[in-house]
Amino acid sequence: MAKVTVVMGSKSDMPVAEKAIGLLKEFGIASDVFVASAHRTPARVESLVKGSDADVFIAIAGLSAALPGVVASFTLKPVIGVPVSGKISMDAVLSVVQMPPGIPVAAVGLDRGDNAAILAAQILAVKDPDITKKLRAHREGMESRVLEDSKGIE
Amino acid sequence: MAKVTVVMGSKSDMPVAEKAIGLLKEFGIASDVFVASAHRTPARVESLVKGSDADVFIAIAGLSAALPGVVASFTLKPVIGVPVSGKISMDAVLSVVQMPPGIPVAAVGLDRGDNAAILAAQILAVKDPDITKKLRAHREGMESRVLEDSKGIE
Amino acid sequence: MAKVTVVMGSKSDMPVAEKAIGLLKEFGIASDVFVASAHRTPARVESLVKGSDADVFIAIAGLSAALPGVVASFTLKPVIGVPVSGKISMDAVLSVVQMPPGIPVAAVGLDRGDNAAILAAQILAVKDPDITKKLRAHREGMESRVLEDSKGIE
Amino acid sequence: MAKVTVVMGSKSDMPVAEKAIGLLKEFGIASDVFVASAHRTPARVESLVKGSDADVFIAIAGLSAALPGVVASFTLKPVIGVPVSGKISMDAVLSVVQMPPGIPVAAVGLDRGDNAAILAAQILAVKDPDITKKLRAHREGMESRVLEDSKGIE
Amino acid sequence: MAKVTVVMGSKSDMPVAEKAIGLLKEFGIASDVFVASAHRTPARVESLVKGSDADVFIAIAGLSAALPGVVASFTLKPVIGVPVSGKISMDAVLSVVQMPPGIPVAAVGLDRGDNAAILAAQILAVKDPDITKKLRAHREGMESRVLEDSKGIE
Amino acid sequence: MAKVTVVMGSKSDMPVAEKAIGLLKEFGIASDVFVASAHRTPARVESLVKGSDADVFIAIAGLSAALPGVVASFTLKPVIGVPVSGKISMDAVLSVVQMPPGIPVAAVGLDRGDNAAILAAQILAVKDPDITKKLRAHREGMESRVLEDSKGIE
Amino acid sequence: MAKVTVVMGSKSDMPVAEKAIGLLKEFGIASDVFVASAHRTPARVESLVKGSDADVFIAIAGLSAALPGVVASFTLKPVIGVPVSGKISMDAVLSVVQMPPGIPVAAVGLDRGDNAAILAAQILAVKDPDITKKLRAHREGMESRVLEDSKGIE
Amino acid sequence: MAKVTVVMGSKSDMPVAEKAIGLLKEFGIASDVFVASAHRTPARVESLVKGSDADVFIAIAGLSAALPGVVASFTLKPVIGVPVSGKISMDAVLSVVQMPPGIPVAAVGLDRGDNAAILAAQILAVKDPDITKKLRAHREGMESRVLEDSKGIE
Repeated sequence: MAKVTVVMGSKSDMPVAEKAIGLLKEFGIASDVFVASAHRTPARVESLVKGSDADVFIAIAGLSAALPGVVASFTLKPVIGVPVSGKISMDAVLSVVQMPPGIPVAAVGLDRGDNAAILAAQILAVKDPDITKKLRAHREGMESRVLEDSKGIE
Repeated sequence: MAKVTVVMGSKSDMPVAEKAIGLLKEFGIASDVFVASAHRTPARVESLVKGSDADVFIAIAGLSAALPGVVASFTLKPVIGVPVSGKISMDAVLSVVQMPPGIPVAAVGLDRGDNAAILAAQILAVKDPDITKKLRAHREGMESRVLEDSKGIE
Repeated sequence: MAKVTVVMGSKSDMPVAEKAIGLLKEFGIASDVFVASAHRTPARVESLVKGSDADVFIAIAGLSAALPGVVASFTLKPVIGVPVSGKISMDAVLSVVQMPPGIPVAAVGLDRGDNAAILAAQILAVKDPDITKKLRAHREGMESRVLEDSKGIE
Repeated sequence: MAKVTVVMGSKSDMPVAEKAIGLLKEFGIASDVFVASAHRTPARVESLVKGSDADVFIAIAGLSAALPGVVASFTLKPVIGVPVSGKISMDAVLSVVQMPPGIPVAAVGLDRGDNAAILAAQILAVKDPDITKKLRAHREGMESRVLEDSKGIE
Repeated sequence: MAKVTVVMGSKSDMPVAEKAIGLLKEFGIASDVFVASAHRTPARVESLVKGSDADVFIAIAGLSAALPGVVASFTLKPVIGVPVSGKISMDAVLSVVQMPPGIPVAAVGLDRGDNAAILAAQILAVKDPDITKKLRAHREGMESRVLEDSKGIE
Repeated sequence: MAKVTVVMGSKSDMPVAEKAIGLLKEFGIASDVFVASAHRTPARVESLVKGSDADVFIAIAGLSAALPGVVASFTLKPVIGVPVSGKISMDAVLSVVQMPPGIPVAAVGLDRGDNAAILAAQILAVKDPDITKKLRAHREGMESRVLEDSKGIE
Repeated sequence: MAKVTVVMGSKSDMPVAEKAIGLLKEFGIASDVFVASAHRTPARVESLVKGSDADVFIAIAGLSAALPGVVASFTLKPVIGVPVSGKISMDAVLSVVQMPPGIPVAAVGLDRGDNAAILAAQILAVKDPDITKKLRAHREGMESRVLEDSKGIE
Repeated sequence: MAKVTVVMGSKSDMPVAEKAIGLLKEFGIASDVFVASAHRTPARVESLVKGSDADVFIAIAGLSAALPGVVASFTLKPVIGVPVSGKISMDAVLSVVQMPPGIPVAAVGLDRGDNAAILAAQILAVKDPDITKKLRAHREGMESRVLEDSKGIE
């Protein structure tokens, strides 16, 4: 069964992680979740990543957000990085996006735990067509909500 | 066989696309490549994406880089977005990264066609272990080059 | 009779749209308003734009604000883009302003639904001198208010 | 006959103005062009704008690009602002885009004299359907070039 | 007697203006204060500036803060520009600072009406040594407060 | 006779200083010029400023451009700060503009040694009407050049 | 005994200073703390720095944060600079980081008084192995807290 | 004898490293230098740092510059981070400066290998007064050069 490991750099990133975890559940994708800091607990990040049987990683961090890149350095699996907003915000965005050649991180938008989960599902759907069905249902749900919102306003 | 469709917004994005195409070949991944502008040829983007049998899309664009998001709006497959540098550069980075909830783009760094290809390979490796082997070889190659570079300097 | 179609990317953009709609009414310009997301409902954006008999479009969006450019890709009518403020704000500004050659968007300031409506009126006044009169009255009203504000302070 | 007045803040902005003038000619739109600085020659800007019989203004300026806004302050006609790139570039972009409520400028992208001309044509096409035909031809030409570029690469 | 004219672009800039007016009074410098918008009331700005017998102008504005530069275009007197904070803030800072060659504005920091008044006093002290005395007293007062603050903390 | 002391943080700032010195000469204002670094030679800055009989200071510096603020901390005379462009440029702009309350610096634009000289002349003209005449001639010269530039293009 | 002198530019920086002072106490490092402004009280900064027997300085300031650089100009001891957040925040970050060649400041993150203290302790540990022990305990404490946070969430 | 380990993320960072190495030699401080990428060779970074007998580390990196923070995560010694300029530059600056609480990096300016070496020397001088003498000589040398530069210009 497909699995996603969610790692956040600090427990204060929990609201962003929750958006991801909720959607993964909706897509029927197993997940586990950890707090592990690239800077405060590097050995823990390494052992979690190397010991994980996840197919995809979601790494969530703010400030100088090294976590997604460090996770990516320990695995060949796809790593999705979620920058977390703060006093500057561009620090996290640029730290997650501007990875050097050779070690990509799939950056999603600021605080976008939801999009991280959807992207993870899209990746896992490469081998599991059931997830594609759930993604389609989710997208159709969004379309319906846009239509309803529009109706309410028109 | 796994396949990646590479779309660039303008032929001036070719140097970035070439980095991707070269690496995809190295990983034994089939690819096709098109020029198609989200703004100048929206119908073409739609028909290319809907008509493609690609497992993953790579979309490359500069300025107000709508292409990756527009590609993502027409497919449930993973879409990797590559912002292209220009007079401001942050315009392309933010346009690719800051996608709204529901339609993720996997953003890689500025002009990082190479990382887009590696990320595509990591995604395809979810169902094809042969690609994992090639990714491992590629990463070991990078490690060796770092060691050699270091030896030359030490 | 002159008509403006207002499209917003999300119902949360309503406060910005309301500034536009109120002023269009003041200028005696017909308008309709829709929620339609370039990313979540691309087909809806296309059919709304192609099916609209509007003379001018106002497109309102935040984050990676592709909506104005996507609207512009489906019409030869003038498209006014309104970036919506958020955690970064420069993402929306740059996404709306930095359009590639060939497909212009007329960008107004952050959250400036009011200026979008005035600009739409200025455009429609090209063929309808009555709107010019209302624009003149509106501008004179602003001048008077500045004078009153100044009197209250002097 | 429809007419556009192009004003640039300094003769060094000429390359950006030329992109506009060339396209206006292609669209069969009359234009005149002036150098006039909002800061060095405010009276000249005022008399040029008030004395002009233009239907649309294009104002081109860099640095603290006040020219588009100052032109807009003297007319009820639509004013298109083109920020010009320089050592910072964001100075011109923000000065042109971030107009206060009441006096809109239609901002196009950095150095985008071409898009200013197309937007001017779109505005003038509101009353002159011949311009719409030329705009359609121009857009179809762009589409063809994208297709050719793509063929050359595929 | 030395005199300063304070112009603000909108009555919402009053808190910044008040910092200036209070200090000018403390320095024994006459001042008058007006609301006048470079964009909404250009004629008013011109007539106020040309009709003023001020020795120094303080111009306060936010967003695309053209006011200081426009004031400077109508006078050879020194013009101090105060950018006002907002959703972006850098728009006002850059609009005030990045004046083109030939028409300087003396920019002070964001919302720094106080520093505008002190700078005006320093300028007027060039011909009036009494103001120098008051500036010295003011600076010594600041020094004392720093010492007291430090004592309270040490 | 009126006098301006020009201080630059490094001899590499000479091209910016030369723009100032040339114009001061044109305005008949005496000037002396020094290299003195706020960080490398703080005592020299202090003694130069305290020992100077200048009526106005122009301080030119790049990077973390502390020089204008440090000069201002040692004198009650007006201090004009010129940020010098570099790899980031916004570092110098913000360091010069964002002075704390109590110690203003009159910031001019990036590399704008010319505007620093004109502003210095405007300040000195407060007590010397001859300088006003020269400023008027200078401004009229600019106006003429704009007109000639425009003629050459019209 | 090792000693750190903490200087803040304004008493409003106290919350940042307190983070530093608390941790220094935890590490058994003596400290004294002063308010002294590079701009308002330059002589005081000079005499405090030159008169201090500190082994390391921590300088805390916002806006155009000259204080760390000015402290560094008066001593050969290591100087740690802490930028303080405000309306722009990047002003303080860049002012502290972008020091010219020859006079380094050790910049830590925005409002990071805590990291300034830890860095000071790391520096002092170069000669005092007891501090290393305390640093190790502190780091192990952080690791434990990350583990506990993770347990609470897993 | 005091020792500094210099680590750079890529051999392209060599020009920045050379500035550091040259100055360390001038100060009589032993150094070794390696290429080791936080992302491409994480195990190598860990073993280099843990195996090093250095008293201070200098870590040099561009883009999402994780190297200084990762080095800091493996040691209690002071770590100096040098951001390297590139297409954006602010990515490296923010990645190095904005470290989370608990793991400081001593950030110096963009490409400032020289300041990294001086800061390392200042840190090592805490236990070795000979280095202080060399630092004093170096600073006096800078002062002399500023004086000479000034003489050449005055």
